[in-house]
Amino acid sequence: MTFINFTEKTLRTFTFTVFKKMGCTDEHATLAADVLLRSDLRGIDSHGVARLSGYVRLWEKKRINATPNIKVVHETPTTATVDGDSGLGLVVAPFAMTIAIEKAEKYGSGWVAVKNSNHFGIAGYHALMAVEKDMIGISMTNASPLVAPTYANERLLGTNPMCYAFPAGKYPPVIVDMATAAAANGKLEIAQRANKDIPDGWVQDKEGNNSTNPNELKNGGSLLPLGSDKDHGSHKGYGLSATVDILSAVLSGANYGPWVPPFVSFLEPPSDPVGEGIGHFLGAMRVDGFRPTADFKSHLDNWIETFKNAKTVDPNKKVIIPGEPEYAFEQERKQSGIPIIDVVVKDLNELADKLGIAHL
Amino acid sequence: MTFINFTEKTLRTFTFTVFKKMGCTDEHATLAADVLLRSDLRGIDSHGVARLSGYVRLWEKKRINATPNIKVVHETPTTATVDGDSGLGLVVAPFAMTIAIEKAEKYGSGWVAVKNSNHFGIAGYHALMAVEKDMIGISMTNASPLVAPTYANERLLGTNPMCYAFPAGKYPPVIVDMATAAAANGKLEIAQRANKDIPDGWVQDKEGNNSTNPNELKNGGSLLPLGSDKDHGSHKGYGLSATVDILSAVLSGANYGPWVPPFVSFLEPPSDPVGEGIGHFLGAMRVDGFRPTADFKSHLDNWIETFKNAKTVDPNKKVIIPGEPEYAFEQERKQSGIPIIDVVVKDLNELADKLGIAHL
Repeated sequence: MTFINFTEKTLRTFTFTVFKKMGCTDEHATLAADVLLRSDLRGIDSHGVARLSGYVRLWEKKRINATPNIKVVHETPTTATVDGDSGLGLVVAPFAMTIAIEKAEKYGSGWVAVKNSNHFGIAGYHALMAVEKDMIGISMTNASPLVAPTYANERLLGTNPMCYAFPAGKYPPVIVDMATAAAANGKLEIAQRANKDIPDGWVQDKEGNNSTNPNELKNGGSLLPLGSDKDHGSHKGYGLSATVDILSAVLSGANYGPWVPPFVSFLEPPSDPVGEGIGHFLGAMRVDGFRPTADFKSHLDNWIETFKNAKTVDPNKKVIIPGEPEYAFEQERKQSGIPIIDVVVKDLNELADKLGIAHL
Repeated sequence: MTFINFTEKTLRTFTFTVFKKMGCTDEHATLAADVLLRSDLRGIDSHGVARLSGYVRLWEKKRINATPNIKVVHETPTTATVDGDSGLGLVVAPFAMTIAIEKAEKYGSGWVAVKNSNHFGIAGYHALMAVEKDMIGISMTNASPLVAPTYANERLLGTNPMCYAFPAGKYPPVIVDMATAAAANGKLEIAQRANKDIPDGWVQDKEGNNSTNPNELKNGGSLLPLGSDKDHGSHKGYGLSATVDILSAVLSGANYGPWVPPFVSFLEPPSDPVGEGIGHFLGAMRVDGFRPTADFKSHLDNWIETFKNAKTVDPNKKVIIPGEPEYAFEQERKQSGIPIIDVVVKDLNELADKLGIAHL
């Protein structure tokens, strides 16, 4: 594998230009590029510019609307449902989180369910919008079905991530941002490229047998929920994924379970939808709605120090504070640039040719 | 093992009488008994009357206040912090959930963090209070440290349960109510009694090695987070447990991490508390704050049917809807009574002797 290093600015300009070519407004193209770049900066390479050509292919198939009329269709003082009008989730989710934050500013908390959207990038981006306002941020989304619930031999749930983010004082925010599957598809792809087996407990084959073959998903198998099997709590991973699906889609009027449209353009969405597009759920709570912000932050700092300094099994492996590795990546990559794997660079330059814009 | 069958009424009267002997008001004793009975009815035997003598021992040590002045100490229209005044969590948590529900009735949602409380029974009880009002109920609590975060060789987190509950139409509510550890302590106790090994991935010994010995926790070992090890996502279980700890305690002003006071009376609380008592976090969101309740319920019914009817690996094992087994227990035990294991009956009758009340 070869990596080519790019500055944040180069990748941002390229990404902005691609979204402009799709017909996005300047404002939307800037925002969508920011969500993808934030992912690359934070070391979550699977959710950044590597996905750009995927968004474009969905737009070509008219499954993404580059000029959506995003609007609130139902609300109370602290709750709302947003119709994303088939827009980029990268734009729809920040719109919804902005509403949640506005409601929280007025009433202490705000909660927005979203329907008729598309892939929203990293969950952490949206939750961090709240953290920047000294609020607790919550974000989740459903996704196309790849995961079999406990006992099932059918893909009924996405990797359905949930994110909780908390502002700290002298430390970076604590950000729990996790897929509810035992392992996300990106880890299978790494094993495929390296031609290596994967650990037991990540996938089952199409008969429902445990497998260590990283290609199992392509062969009709399924990912397993966090917990892997019943003995190890897979019913809990399944329950969390179900929670994300219900909050994101049953509550908003989006598609849920096996009806969630696939992110890949070569698979058609189900012909019998039960809702509109995919769904998200976003929330913000003012920290000072519960106690003075300075008190919360100093105790969260103490929490962080306690966990960072815990006795470990291997003295070379410290306890990791959720969000800390991504924060470290962000500081480093802002300085030294973002390494992009050669196959992604090739893909992006082919995209540039197709759209008639300059290569990376 | 021998079980003795009791009617719900017999157990309820006995439990009420015990709480009255502690000095609780009629109202509090009725409520606390209801929380414990609901657990036994729902088949969660570990959290019902089996814990009654534990509550009494904490009261004897003056760590539970039978006549608390429970009050709101901080609030906005949709958020609040409650001081439980060292009361029974069985009483403090319903008080807090009632406030969350009142706020949701007015503003769409309500969120209450609780400090200075004690063990609150099953998380599901409190979340179901919201469901009965056609709201989504959320409840969580921190607990005394038994779980080692990923890489740690120290107990820093409780089994910290989280619960999300959703009202359905023709089906029972969907209730995801789960400890964030790979397996709760109750499962270890069952293996101890049966003199059997436990699966790999539930505990580590005091050196941090994987172990299948159900007595490991007594020997200085730790429970493992949901996911069991890093390869299988234990950092996610740790992240969820951290989320519960932060929302329940860092946000409310309760003790967190290793400072959470133990539920057992023979262990003293840490002498350097960072907050007051243990913490909970409770929330309620009106379903009709997002879409008409009837629409939500009919789609949740469709979700339930889809998952119930999924193709399974073993035709004899159906996909289980979260909350369904507990609902089935409740229907059955209301009719046929509640089986209590003989050692618990003996313990309760010794408690009766101590308090000078009639045996079970």
